[in-house]
Amino acid sequence: MVEVDRERSAGRIAREIETLSGPDFTTTSEAIRRYAYTPEYRRTLDHFTAALQETGFTVTEDPVGTLVARNRPLGEPTFGIGSHCDSNRNGGRYDGTLGVVTALEVCRLNEELGVGLPLQLVSFLEEEGSGFGQMLLGSRIMLRRVSEDDLRERFRSLDDGRSFWEHAEAAGYEPARWKESIHVLDGLTGWIEMHIEQARVLQDTGKRIGVVNAIAGYVHADVVVTGRGDHAGATPMGLRLDPTTVLAETVLELERLATEAGGGTVGTVGEIDVDPGLINAVGAQARFSLDVRGPEDERFQRVAAKAAGFALDAAQRRGMSASYEERQTLPATALDGRIVGALEAAAAETGESWTTMHSGAAHDTMCVAERVPSAMVFVPCKDGISHHPAEEADPADAALAAEVILNAIAALA
Amino acid sequence: MVEVDRERSAGRIAREIETLSGPDFTTTSEAIRRYAYTPEYRRTLDHFTAALQETGFTVTEDPVGTLVARNRPLGEPTFGIGSHCDSNRNGGRYDGTLGVVTALEVCRLNEELGVGLPLQLVSFLEEEGSGFGQMLLGSRIMLRRVSEDDLRERFRSLDDGRSFWEHAEAAGYEPARWKESIHVLDGLTGWIEMHIEQARVLQDTGKRIGVVNAIAGYVHADVVVTGRGDHAGATPMGLRLDPTTVLAETVLELERLATEAGGGTVGTVGEIDVDPGLINAVGAQARFSLDVRGPEDERFQRVAAKAAGFALDAAQRRGMSASYEERQTLPATALDGRIVGALEAAAAETGESWTTMHSGAAHDTMCVAERVPSAMVFVPCKDGISHHPAEEADPADAALAAEVILNAIAALA
Repeated sequence: MVEVDRERSAGRIAREIETLSGPDFTTTSEAIRRYAYTPEYRRTLDHFTAALQETGFTVTEDPVGTLVARNRPLGEPTFGIGSHCDSNRNGGRYDGTLGVVTALEVCRLNEELGVGLPLQLVSFLEEEGSGFGQMLLGSRIMLRRVSEDDLRERFRSLDDGRSFWEHAEAAGYEPARWKESIHVLDGLTGWIEMHIEQARVLQDTGKRIGVVNAIAGYVHADVVVTGRGDHAGATPMGLRLDPTTVLAETVLELERLATEAGGGTVGTVGEIDVDPGLINAVGAQARFSLDVRGPEDERFQRVAAKAAGFALDAAQRRGMSASYEERQTLPATALDGRIVGALEAAAAETGESWTTMHSGAAHDTMCVAERVPSAMVFVPCKDGISHHPAEEADPADAALAAEVILNAIAALA
Repeated sequence: MVEVDRERSAGRIAREIETLSGPDFTTTSEAIRRYAYTPEYRRTLDHFTAALQETGFTVTEDPVGTLVARNRPLGEPTFGIGSHCDSNRNGGRYDGTLGVVTALEVCRLNEELGVGLPLQLVSFLEEEGSGFGQMLLGSRIMLRRVSEDDLRERFRSLDDGRSFWEHAEAAGYEPARWKESIHVLDGLTGWIEMHIEQARVLQDTGKRIGVVNAIAGYVHADVVVTGRGDHAGATPMGLRLDPTTVLAETVLELERLATEAGGGTVGTVGEIDVDPGLINAVGAQARFSLDVRGPEDERFQRVAAKAAGFALDAAQRRGMSASYEERQTLPATALDGRIVGALEAAAAETGESWTTMHSGAAHDTMCVAERVPSAMVFVPCKDGISHHPAEEADPADAALAAEVILNAIAALA
């Protein structure tokens, strides 16, 4: 087990985060806002490039701008670590960037302490989708989960409407070679991404490290209940077809179903629209969204199906009709048992509190895991707040994560 | 009992409605849209004026434009009948106008059949609030339920933002004399307004006439539940403070409370806003409206109070907070037992199906009843649809109502 000076690591991580929160690295002073092909994003890549080169790594970028740094020549096996360093438009200092900074710390410790592990750091492009409205864009390009038409035509800048392709070329990249991005994964023996949790599980249970063994899949869907618009004063209770009652029953049933299913299954009604939406009118129609997730496909998909069935039955029971339409379904990503086990062992060695958990949020690792044995490490973020300037995380937790990751990779080597 | 040729009355009523649906009497061809001080409204008053004068009535207008027609000199007692002939902006042919047309038919029958009742027809200004966003405006002015400042400054045209006062003067009225409007009620021995039901009770129970014995009062209020915005994927069910669950429980409890209360009490959640309102976010806050009504103050106010208390308790039970704020409370209007009884007797005499009921919607009669013994008569409207071009009612039912009203007033004389 490698002995790490945690305070020194925490200090370095804190300074990196401080630097990358400066005016050179965000397009607004009100939040962290950086995304592909802006000067602020370019400077962020340049900052990591200089730091990694100083650590003895060779730095390149893939055909669209994902940063890749290695301490071994191309063709030799390495272990991958990293995250993303773009932010959402009203972002904080830690989401993504703390993962790249921690990976940089792993690289530094590896060289300084003479551990000598073969490493490859990756900082993915456009995880947040702030530039072109497309989440996980860099890793989806890498895994060929986009089409050439998407890149040439469909994906357009939120700022000026020009295509991703145009912007990539203007920034000096070669989007025509996008299919070569997958070679970034060549020779990777494993992959570990560190990220803030974006929820309250670690904070509320008093843990400093979360070893992530799965990333939740999800069903996103809409339910539309059609009742009958009526005068709120003149229509007796017994003559109503009020769609908000079906909404109400379904909200409570989804809560019950997700709780009962357990195993990390969650269900949320986040969007509600009542038409016409007037205080003095019984609604004619109610639309609401369903977001059902979990680390086990069968379990969360069963909850979504039951909630949908319940809504349709509840509508029928009350003499109304309802429809259910899926927007998107993504299966859960099981992470690699061997890497998870090594992370658990390394976390236990630290003497600090830790837990095994799944990720409810999506991450680039969902794409990487398709090709490379993968796992993730979470650190707490204050009150679960992310995607907001108020985002906060403790560099000491990140230093602990760097130690865990370094030791896990060493144990796997 | 006066014998009436119902078919002839129905034909006359149908022709009046047909005329007043023509292009001269609406500002748009897509709906009936007429409101104070437009040329279309002026032509509607002129139409009634001519018809009433032809029937032997003297026609005047009050200082703001409420039309008043009498078959007796000022100072002599008369019985009041009428409604309003403005429409909402996306209105139909029948709401209000059918009541004035039916009152005109009562006047015609009274003269033709030599009944000789002393009558005063009133067509109120701006019941729908289409001109200045103020419902029951003419009758509220008459009963001095507005202030001079309201008329001079606060009430402004939805079209051009100029004050009610300016518009009234431009139309040739004398708003400075608005307090004299109350004299329209001088010498009225009673008042009956006929109106379409605006709900489905008559249609669904197969009745042609509703004798209205009360007009519902209401509580309008908002409940705001403050939970905690969280990531919909990453936040376990047990760590959530999801305000939509309190919304859901309250919707169902309000339904239960109103049904249990009976006596015509109704409760509606018509407006729902979830903040931030994203499919992948647990809501931070949910606001929803309460509309609780009924013909008995104590009963509907108890339901509103219980629903509010339930929401606050439900929030607290789940670790959240909630607030309750009333927008407006209006007591119920009990109608006059003697007039209601005369209408019931006259309805029974027709041999047609009828019922006694309350009005869930507000009407000018709420104001008139403050000073004059009052009642109302409802006729069915198709599928309860009103305030819409699809509004439909049967002139034969209106003819029946005219007969009932004429006979009731005769019996009361």
